[in-house]
Amino acid sequence: MPKLHLLLLGMLTFATVFVTAQAKPAPAWSSETLQQLRHLHQGALEDNYAYQQAAHLTDNIGPRLAGSPQAAAAVEYVAAELRKLGLDVTLEPVSVPNWIRGEEHAALVNYPGQAPGTQQKIVVTALASVNNATPAEGTTAEIVVVNSFDELAAMPREKVAGKIVVFNERFDRQMAAAGFGLAAYGQAVAYREDGRVAAAKQGAVAVLVRSAGRAEFRLPHTGETGYDPKLPSIPAAAVTAEDAELMARLAAQGPVRLHLVLTPKLLPNVVSYNVIADLKGSEHPEQVVIVSGHLDSWDLGTGAIDDAAGVAVSMETAELLKQLHLQPKRTIRIVAWMAEETGIFGGKAYAKQHANDVANHFAAIETDLGAGHPLGINVGGDEAALGLLQPVANVLAASGAGVLRSSDETGADIIPLRVAGVPTFSPIQDVRSYFDYHHTAADTLDKINARELRENAAVVAVLAYALAPMDAKLPRKAPPVHEWLK
Amino acid sequence: MPKLHLLLLGMLTFATVFVTAQAKPAPAWSSETLQQLRHLHQGALEDNYAYQQAAHLTDNIGPRLAGSPQAAAAVEYVAAELRKLGLDVTLEPVSVPNWIRGEEHAALVNYPGQAPGTQQKIVVTALASVNNATPAEGTTAEIVVVNSFDELAAMPREKVAGKIVVFNERFDRQMAAAGFGLAAYGQAVAYREDGRVAAAKQGAVAVLVRSAGRAEFRLPHTGETGYDPKLPSIPAAAVTAEDAELMARLAAQGPVRLHLVLTPKLLPNVVSYNVIADLKGSEHPEQVVIVSGHLDSWDLGTGAIDDAAGVAVSMETAELLKQLHLQPKRTIRIVAWMAEETGIFGGKAYAKQHANDVANHFAAIETDLGAGHPLGINVGGDEAALGLLQPVANVLAASGAGVLRSSDETGADIIPLRVAGVPTFSPIQDVRSYFDYHHTAADTLDKINARELRENAAVVAVLAYALAPMDAKLPRKAPPVHEWLK
Repeated sequence: MPKLHLLLLGMLTFATVFVTAQAKPAPAWSSETLQQLRHLHQGALEDNYAYQQAAHLTDNIGPRLAGSPQAAAAVEYVAAELRKLGLDVTLEPVSVPNWIRGEEHAALVNYPGQAPGTQQKIVVTALASVNNATPAEGTTAEIVVVNSFDELAAMPREKVAGKIVVFNERFDRQMAAAGFGLAAYGQAVAYREDGRVAAAKQGAVAVLVRSAGRAEFRLPHTGETGYDPKLPSIPAAAVTAEDAELMARLAAQGPVRLHLVLTPKLLPNVVSYNVIADLKGSEHPEQVVIVSGHLDSWDLGTGAIDDAAGVAVSMETAELLKQLHLQPKRTIRIVAWMAEETGIFGGKAYAKQHANDVANHFAAIETDLGAGHPLGINVGGDEAALGLLQPVANVLAASGAGVLRSSDETGADIIPLRVAGVPTFSPIQDVRSYFDYHHTAADTLDKINARELRENAAVVAVLAYALAPMDAKLPRKAPPVHEWLK
Repeated sequence: MPKLHLLLLGMLTFATVFVTAQAKPAPAWSSETLQQLRHLHQGALEDNYAYQQAAHLTDNIGPRLAGSPQAAAAVEYVAAELRKLGLDVTLEPVSVPNWIRGEEHAALVNYPGQAPGTQQKIVVTALASVNNATPAEGTTAEIVVVNSFDELAAMPREKVAGKIVVFNERFDRQMAAAGFGLAAYGQAVAYREDGRVAAAKQGAVAVLVRSAGRAEFRLPHTGETGYDPKLPSIPAAAVTAEDAELMARLAAQGPVRLHLVLTPKLLPNVVSYNVIADLKGSEHPEQVVIVSGHLDSWDLGTGAIDDAAGVAVSMETAELLKQLHLQPKRTIRIVAWMAEETGIFGGKAYAKQHANDVANHFAAIETDLGAGHPLGINVGGDEAALGLLQPVANVLAASGAGVLRSSDETGADIIPLRVAGVPTFSPIQDVRSYFDYHHTAADTLDKINARELRENAAVVAVLAYALAPMDAKLPRKAPPVHEWLK
């Protein structure tokens, strides 16, 4: 009883404090600062710097797969550009996998109604993982098409063993069209991530996964896939939606055999870098607000919306502050993360390297869902921050970005900081077309709408500059640590 | 003067006849026939036969490039299916080119901002023509990007000679979205057809043409391209819209060199066939109404909307008449044309083989713009037919296909009949998405909407059955003969 009483008292006290804070919020920003934020907002909407940076990263440097010469060139380029702006630039080493895509092709070699002497091409792309190659001459086996993990698990092992499993989970386009693209993607991408292990468990000799993301242009969607060292490392590839459906229809008519050639290689890790560039704070140089995107990309396209856009709007934050002579009170740290795609290596390395300095990380922002029109700000961590940030949202409302939403979707690279309690943020982006393109050959510069990119730069720059002088500390809340982070 | 007088008199007489025909039209169809047409229309909307045929042609047989084993298998398959329905089937020989796609790839090997040791992939697909290969090791040269024929022609020869011309004519998406897809396509495809000769004239060593048709999924659009025996036969390929834009942007910054490998072969002609299947007329078996689509396709996709759909709705016309025990008075002739894509060889061969019998060709229908919702009927030839066909349009209006429009867009294979004076027809199809897919790897079964395919079958079947018993001869008008047909 006494204990319960104490607990209740504690709760009431907390509630009172909270209500008081709501009722009489200290003005977090002076009217002069709010005027600067409006000025910065307008400046971002008129600045083409981010687009030019995205163009250089994608057109001139090209795909930036972690470990590649292009990724190395991109590190040098971004570092040099940020030095040009007068920032204090450090390259922090990150050991990254060096995965190299090899030959990749597939064909149906036996199927119902086949014309003698012919095959049907199946468009495949290898998924990145450990030991993911077929023999050089390829693997040929019957396919078994399933729609879900449950369907596969329910099959007797002898119906799967020795065969090639085809996961035909459909991306929920209605969901994506209605604004829930990330949720739709999450449902589909589970098969890319875990399908290999699930198929290996049942004795399959290879696995093909229908491409995650809406796809109706015969484009495969690459990405990483998992493995279980206790199971055989079977070859895994993504197939296009069209080809997954074709295989499902043909397999319903009779036996279908497929020939698959994948020759990717995972070479020994190489050292790459997170690019860290500080615009030193005038009052609290030791406290940092991170503004970031990831510099690496997949290799099929040129990584424009995933994620040259995110790096470019981060770089523009620094460029705008310099151009407008706005001096932040806390340090604004631009970060171009390395090897997000192949396993968040840059984000994890940073959290480890700065583990003793987490308390000085006031906030972290990442942009990694493309360049679509931003509706506002995703606020990770404690919901109390929503109320605090309303004046910032009011500034952003002028470009249609006035929404504040509590959300954990604040970018993969800053998850390690988020679980350490650092408040995290990202623009709420319109992702209705994002999943059509990212991880495919069509993720190219033309997918970035220059005006919408400027809108994103406006959100990120305004938010970063608003966080830099806040007197109140943002409420910190550490969510449970993910298994993969332990 | 007397001559002019005579001419005016003739015109007045014609006008009078025309007005009389409009004022008191003879009832072209009995109420019983109109009832049959309504029944047929409803039957088509409930029949899945065409879809099943399109599925077999695309899924089971696959791409059907003229001269290929798949094209031969498709001829046998369609002939057998139509024999099953009780039709009188003939295979009429057509000598067709045997063009075989080889290896095809390209990369930018020098360009501004290039990371040392890297290249950028350019997605290419060879265009079909005579002598269209590079040497096996490829061709490397600087590119010169132009937006139009005029821009190229205005250049001094020395700025083009020895280089690779890139035509970057943009497909007019606004035009296509507003319903003028064929006109937009016509503007763009001129570069695919004539770009090779235009570039060769200026001394280019190869030509790349931005893919005709809207394209934002890094999909190249194949097709045939011309050649001039008096000029060098330079290699020609289509590039994706994305890659054309990339090259335009980089070339604006400095010299760009491209390495191109194309190894297509044009083997000696082979004999293929038009499939001709007659449902004999009860009163005028010698008079025919052709109902058709083309059986061949390009090789990148499986030729679903171009043009398994057209063949399938033609086959369904026969199937429905049989199923509903409707006996046409004139012969309904189902035709699956061969080698439309590589040069309308089937259509030209048919016109030649039946040159002495043109007068007995009462009408010809072709479906070759996909499987989109039909809005009515394109009426080729004399506009007087529009008035005559109103009762048929009234029947079709029940499925939203009640429009009658005078148009020459009635299908390529029946152009040789049209210029010989045969009245031609096609469904007016919604082509807003057609040009996204046709001639690309994404022209696959899933692009056919089953309901819309049934609507097309309804238009074609009703029109064909309505033409079969007409007492009045349709007005015949022979347009000028195209140069390529002479």
